[in-house]
Amino acid sequence: MSVRLDVLFGAHEVTPQDVSGRVVAVIDVLRASTTIAAALHAGARAVIPFASTEEAATRARGMDRDAVLLGGERKMLPIPGFDFGNSPAEYTPKSVGGKTLLFTTTNGTAALVATQGARDVVVASFANFTAAGALLRAALRGGNPVTLLCAGRDGHFSLEDAVCAGRLAKHLVQRNAKVQLGDATLACQLLAKKFEHSLARVFEQSEHGRALVEAGFARDLEICATLDAFPVVPVYHDRQVTKLGPDLVR
Amino acid sequence: MSVRLDVLFGAHEVTPQDVSGRVVAVIDVLRASTTIAAALHAGARAVIPFASTEEAATRARGMDRDAVLLGGERKMLPIPGFDFGNSPAEYTPKSVGGKTLLFTTTNGTAALVATQGARDVVVASFANFTAAGALLRAALRGGNPVTLLCAGRDGHFSLEDAVCAGRLAKHLVQRNAKVQLGDATLACQLLAKKFEHSLARVFEQSEHGRALVEAGFARDLEICATLDAFPVVPVYHDRQVTKLGPDLVR
Repeated sequence: MSVRLDVLFGAHEVTPQDVSGRVVAVIDVLRASTTIAAALHAGARAVIPFASTEEAATRARGMDRDAVLLGGERKMLPIPGFDFGNSPAEYTPKSVGGKTLLFTTTNGTAALVATQGARDVVVASFANFTAAGALLRAALRGGNPVTLLCAGRDGHFSLEDAVCAGRLAKHLVQRNAKVQLGDATLACQLLAKKFEHSLARVFEQSEHGRALVEAGFARDLEICATLDAFPVVPVYHDRQVTKLGPDLVR
Repeated sequence: MSVRLDVLFGAHEVTPQDVSGRVVAVIDVLRASTTIAAALHAGARAVIPFASTEEAATRARGMDRDAVLLGGERKMLPIPGFDFGNSPAEYTPKSVGGKTLLFTTTNGTAALVATQGARDVVVASFANFTAAGALLRAALRGGNPVTLLCAGRDGHFSLEDAVCAGRLAKHLVQRNAKVQLGDATLACQLLAKKFEHSLARVFEQSEHGRALVEAGFARDLEICATLDAFPVVPVYHDRQVTKLGPDLVR
């Protein structure tokens, strides 16, 4: 019995059969996936994604203000009145330890919401590559089809998410001949091979990477290109992302 | 002044700003783009795309039956009651010369319809690569942004369309430093380089290519991989595709 491994390039591409009963990885390398991994690694209790800044702010007002923080971006920039932007370095044990983060970003949130009906959802990036990969590899080994859902940018393909998906795919199919690859998976593997030895070069070539440098976020790119900087397995379940592991088993 | 060259991976990805005022190439290598080029090269007067088999059949009943022919596919196979399937070899001067073809295919039609608002629309494939490329290159030189719209397969990425888009992109930007490439364009160029010396290998690796071989259409793949087999410029205008050229200037 073969098992499928597919890649999608944006939430707009998702049909029910792409996620239903599958294990799905949401990949938004620049920067939501990386920042979520950073926040959970720093000890945030949970990250709750919201589609709009208004929804996040409204929910915050209904909660104990000492226990929640607001984070995210619009057009790459911090949102007025929010505690944090979308830079992973802002999320430290001191700033988010024990807190619940209400989080809204342009592309990452849409991708998380699009996974409805999935068996399991993990948030993946270069910064938690091996940890997220372990969960996905176990899923494939167990015969569960896997979908790598790139968040993309404004409904379009983004190079860095595709390269991360391709690198994950290569990592997952090693010594597993039963995996059946979709065209997009194959294409991403070819792209990942091109950037195998320098993740920083992906950002130099991607439009989002260049836009972030222009907006003054070059330091974020260094973190987003650091393999296994935040070795956590963030799982999305019941509309929140929590860390899978000994201290927070679902 | 720079001018953009973008690639989209399916009709589902199209937003108004992706096509509005742009010159758009619709790429459905397997097989609609190739078959349309074949039909026009064989002397068909026009190809009129339809979303459904019913619409095409209904329209045929309202027309002079000697002047029109029905063609297309569903799940790769000829449609019962239609004159032709979606194999380019079926479309010969004898079979379609002077006729209007009412045509419906799974992915190609949706891509053509999604170009609404474009300045000009050309149908592109390996089989009319240089001819379609000449129109697109002139557009870019004239400062018109260009979108290469891959039809994809059932709303998903298809390898052969992406490779054709990448090869076209490389052809278009030669000696034109003013072209600004989107992430998808860059990715397609990298993929095209991989298959530069053997288009047949693209089909061996693509899911659609393998499915067509299994369904008995291996001969079609040879034609679809033949560069400039049908050197025509098919333009889509007023809901029909006609051949641009001395005998049929719009």
